[in-house]
Amino acid sequence: MKIYDWPTGPYPARVRIALAEKNLRSRVEFVTVDLYKGEHKEPEFLAKNYSGTLPVLELDDGTLIGECTAITEYLDALDGAPVLTGRTPREKGVIHMMSKRAELELLDAISVYFHHATPGLGPHVEIYQNAEWGFRQRDKALRGMQYFDRVLKAQPFVAGEFFSMADITVIGGLIFAGLLKVAVPAECDSLLAWYARMQQRPSVRNRIAMSEPTAASA
Amino acid sequence: MKIYDWPTGPYPARVRIALAEKNLRSRVEFVTVDLYKGEHKEPEFLAKNYSGTLPVLELDDGTLIGECTAITEYLDALDGAPVLTGRTPREKGVIHMMSKRAELELLDAISVYFHHATPGLGPHVEIYQNAEWGFRQRDKALRGMQYFDRVLKAQPFVAGEFFSMADITVIGGLIFAGLLKVAVPAECDSLLAWYARMQQRPSVRNRIAMSEPTAASA
Ligand SMILES: N[C@@H](CCC(=O)N[C@@H](CS)C(=O)NCC(=O)O)C(=O)O
Ligand SMILES: N[C@@H](CCC(=O)N[C@@H](CS)C(=O)NCC(=O)O)C(=O)O
Repeated sequence: MKIYDWPTGPYPARVRIALAEKNLRSRVEFVTVDLYKGEHKEPEFLAKNYSGTLPVLELDDGTLIGECTAITEYLDALDGAPVLTGRTPREKGVIHMMSKRAELELLDAISVYFHHATPGLGPHVEIYQNAEWGFRQRDKALRGMQYFDRVLKAQPFVAGEFFSMADITVIGGLIFAGLLKVAVPAECDSLLAWYARMQQRPSVRNRIAMSEPTAASA
Repeated sequence: MKIYDWPTGPYPARVRIALAEKNLRSRVEFVTVDLYKGEHKEPEFLAKNYSGTLPVLELDDGTLIGECTAITEYLDALDGAPVLTGRTPREKGVIHMMSKRAELELLDAISVYFHHATPGLGPHVEIYQNAEWGFRQRDKALRGMQYFDRVLKAQPFVAGEFFSMADITVIGGLIFAGLLKVAVPAECDSLLAWYARMQQRPSVRNRIAMSEPTAASA
């Protein structure tokens, strides 16, 4: 398998964490697509992912899978023993809801802030910006942090009693917020304590090293 | 099970189609939440779905599942025989990707257009509008239609060889576009032919009748 990747990107981080949780890292070759050069908006890459975003997983048969959620579904199902996306119908439903909510209310909102109300990837990539919308989305993400703080006061993980894709999505949101110096409000103590706990997981802590050429780790 | 619903809404339509495909309609009670009165932004409803959107599925044990994708995952898994969200890892990955892409590039884009560049649900619900962003999203949705037209020139269904959640999401997009009189470009003949074929499915054709009180159909 190949993953089109940007090593420090918050979305690719989600897939790198999923790979490590599933022990699949050694089966993947990472191919860097330079976001700051706009390589992801070139026709060659757009043919792989119409939406022009990373990461994209390419299977050995040539199948292309974009979207972190979809890639995580694929990886988690590979060994017939899903641990990230739910086993029972109820688990699947709740995990998908919380992961989507973490995109809508936190990670994607921060991403819109980045691309619209900061220099983003630079003027030749950010050819249209709507700063007012960007700032609104940042404020939405700050409210989202307060929401996830309330969730994590009541339960140990974002979707309930165990680690799942929903935790990974919130982690992606906090990684992105951290890169942009959007601070988690200090009163979000449960969210902050959960995040500190998440850093203990090797999948989260070592996620960037994981994209080094495989030769280096072989 | 209960579904918090708006009978003619394009997102609730996705769940109503999934229910019919899975033969689960008789197990559901529909509860109308009046969008035009802004009932979905009241604290009572926000406690059910932080994002303040319909549909929401409430299980008999009180579990609340928002987000169409998550609800579809739940419903499709209930009988242990998924037909909408994929059986193999590859099917799951491709279906989730195409459904998400149909949200990003079509349905959600049309929704943003509705809420930001038209009167939407009326002035006391649409308390912030960004018309420029709304029109941009409408144009994105029109490009999305052209993309799905290309997809449907190459294969009979949005995610490949069979009907899936991804078709349902594109159907939601075209329902919403139709309500707003955003016409599918005439050159999108494969998309239009596929949509005509979709109207043959009872799940799609009868979706609104399906929300009548169950007594009426008993
Ligand atoms: N919905 C996509 C979003 C992925 C995304 O936004 N990735 C970032 C990299 S961290 C990207 O490609 N940004 C480039 C751009 O939007 O121009 C997913 O979940 O995979
Ligand atoms: N991401 C949600 C979106 C649902 C959605 O936008 N539903 C519409 C009803 S058709 C809604 O509740 N709109 C009210 C609003 O946004 O104010 C999903 O997929 O379920």
